[in-house]
Amino acid sequence: MKLENDLLIRTANGEEVERPPVWMMRQAGRILPQYRAIRSKLSGFKELATTPSLAAEVTIQPVDELDVDAAIIFSDILVIPEAMGLDYELVEKKGPLFPKTIQTMADVERLLEGEEAAANLPYVYESLDITKKELNGRVPLIGFAGAPWTILSYMVEGSGSKTFSKAKKLLYSQPAVAHRLLEKITTTTIAYLKTKVKHGANLIQVFDSWAGILTPEQYKTFALPYIKRIAESIEDVPVTVFAKGAWFVLEDLGKINCQTIGLDWNTNPELARELIGTDKVLQGNLDPCQLYAPTAEVEKATKAMLQNFGSKHIANLGHGVYPDTPLDSVKAFVNTVKAYRYESSLVS
Amino acid sequence: MKLENDLLIRTANGEEVERPPVWMMRQAGRILPQYRAIRSKLSGFKELATTPSLAAEVTIQPVDELDVDAAIIFSDILVIPEAMGLDYELVEKKGPLFPKTIQTMADVERLLEGEEAAANLPYVYESLDITKKELNGRVPLIGFAGAPWTILSYMVEGSGSKTFSKAKKLLYSQPAVAHRLLEKITTTTIAYLKTKVKHGANLIQVFDSWAGILTPEQYKTFALPYIKRIAESIEDVPVTVFAKGAWFVLEDLGKINCQTIGLDWNTNPELARELIGTDKVLQGNLDPCQLYAPTAEVEKATKAMLQNFGSKHIANLGHGVYPDTPLDSVKAFVNTVKAYRYESSLVS
Repeated sequence: MKLENDLLIRTANGEEVERPPVWMMRQAGRILPQYRAIRSKLSGFKELATTPSLAAEVTIQPVDELDVDAAIIFSDILVIPEAMGLDYELVEKKGPLFPKTIQTMADVERLLEGEEAAANLPYVYESLDITKKELNGRVPLIGFAGAPWTILSYMVEGSGSKTFSKAKKLLYSQPAVAHRLLEKITTTTIAYLKTKVKHGANLIQVFDSWAGILTPEQYKTFALPYIKRIAESIEDVPVTVFAKGAWFVLEDLGKINCQTIGLDWNTNPELARELIGTDKVLQGNLDPCQLYAPTAEVEKATKAMLQNFGSKHIANLGHGVYPDTPLDSVKAFVNTVKAYRYESSLVS
Repeated sequence: MKLENDLLIRTANGEEVERPPVWMMRQAGRILPQYRAIRSKLSGFKELATTPSLAAEVTIQPVDELDVDAAIIFSDILVIPEAMGLDYELVEKKGPLFPKTIQTMADVERLLEGEEAAANLPYVYESLDITKKELNGRVPLIGFAGAPWTILSYMVEGSGSKTFSKAKKLLYSQPAVAHRLLEKITTTTIAYLKTKVKHGANLIQVFDSWAGILTPEQYKTFALPYIKRIAESIEDVPVTVFAKGAWFVLEDLGKINCQTIGLDWNTNPELARELIGTDKVLQGNLDPCQLYAPTAEVEKATKAMLQNFGSKHIANLGHGVYPDTPLDSVKAFVNTVKAYRYESSLVS
């Protein structure tokens, strides 16, 4: 199906465009009253994520309400451990909790991987089918997965953590176990993302949420090679890699076979461009807390961000939008981007 | 009193030395069986921190057990809010909790500041007196405080947080309140640190633990100017600034009037030296999780770190040592540094 608004895809493919496309990480979520209305009737996040008709509905809500340039399928990065055989719960206000964790090679060997594991997520693929049908080509649909290191960190640590010291301990004390686990996560993620593309995902984003707690050397050993393999395996649609906090490997990320690199709000666009080079499209990076400011200041900060990035840019926040962000500020952000025009297209 | 081992002070003052001095953030703590023995008899951390004889005892334990080149006074950065009139509790396994938080200008106006506030911490100064007496000049004693932004973040957020979004919201939505609060924290911190120096602190370290969650622009507006004032106010002893995660302002930190800059494990020494210049001494930065590796690898990684830094270096971890770190690994780290010699002194 041809897309009515293909600005995101043209931008990710490096074409010259009239303005940057805009969407927000976590746009399908608590910032929207429509989302909160649905969520309040359910037992929890997982019921929403595993009910395809509802997941599709909340995926489309931000397109209706905010008129963003893309939808991102409502799901969770931790479906991958679950598909591999490691169940998790989502504890309200606490985050994910894995009753069992991975500690030994035997634990890793018991896990499913690749297509066999990815086949355990039919509800995600069905969510994509319904979303594609209901979006009817209005905007592209983004599919996503966690990067292998981030997925490992939850599987080993068992929950969120300030330091992820148990997960990092595995890298230092049992590197062979870590690599075997990363391998299995990678083959599962590749099969999963390829299936998402078959079911209509127009762009893939890989989230390395805990990239920033590794040393540069660890990142090059335990994270980058696996992301590289994932990026190389996705052939039909553009790929975005967002390694939060990993400023120290931006130069290396610039060399992998992806189209777009996401930036957090610590990283100024000029420096990122210098490290990454001119090939890639950059995505980001307004501080999500900037949206707590009065709307006039949100507009000013958004314009400044757009000017700092220049072309080859997908406008976004530097992290997921926080649940208590005022909707007016969110709209000020989105609308400022949508009203912006690159000078070259004004001239031509 | 003349110091028997003044290697840390000579290094911080830029003198040529035979090897880097070594100490560890959180060395007075749970890694030591002696510490756990004392702690188990008490109601909690605060009882230990507010009982000068005990605080002095645990301050000296790592000098006895590990033979490190410095002691750091056992205390907490959150004594400053308490001295200003904002009490906190330390909840086991959860961290600090402020029953009341700062939200408005009226809240800020009620707080004490400067010498009047600093006078509320006699037990800290008494801990220093006892420690100095019992150390009897063996090694220098380090005094410390939190940087104003980090202290503000706890006073506003009320607890630890992954995002500190409430604290950042204050910066964006009520910048005048934030600056007034930072001002009061700064005058209190200066009075507090000067008193610590009077009571024998031989070096001062300022910890900006939450530096890394600000944008570069916010850091330059709400954090750096206050750290600069503190560094300029401490005249008689060297000052170390450790802004964790704030790689993006290393160049600016290099320009303030301090002797040493602490680095976390994300920041490679070559890049730091390039950004900071050759004037400052650098401190850090082995990943604390590296100490989970077998001791032979700890030794190898420590040597590699020493070589990467070269001279003008104080050996430390890139963060506080984690409580479950094996004591053998800690000793391997310390002893590897102590056995190291700079080539120039081998030759001369």
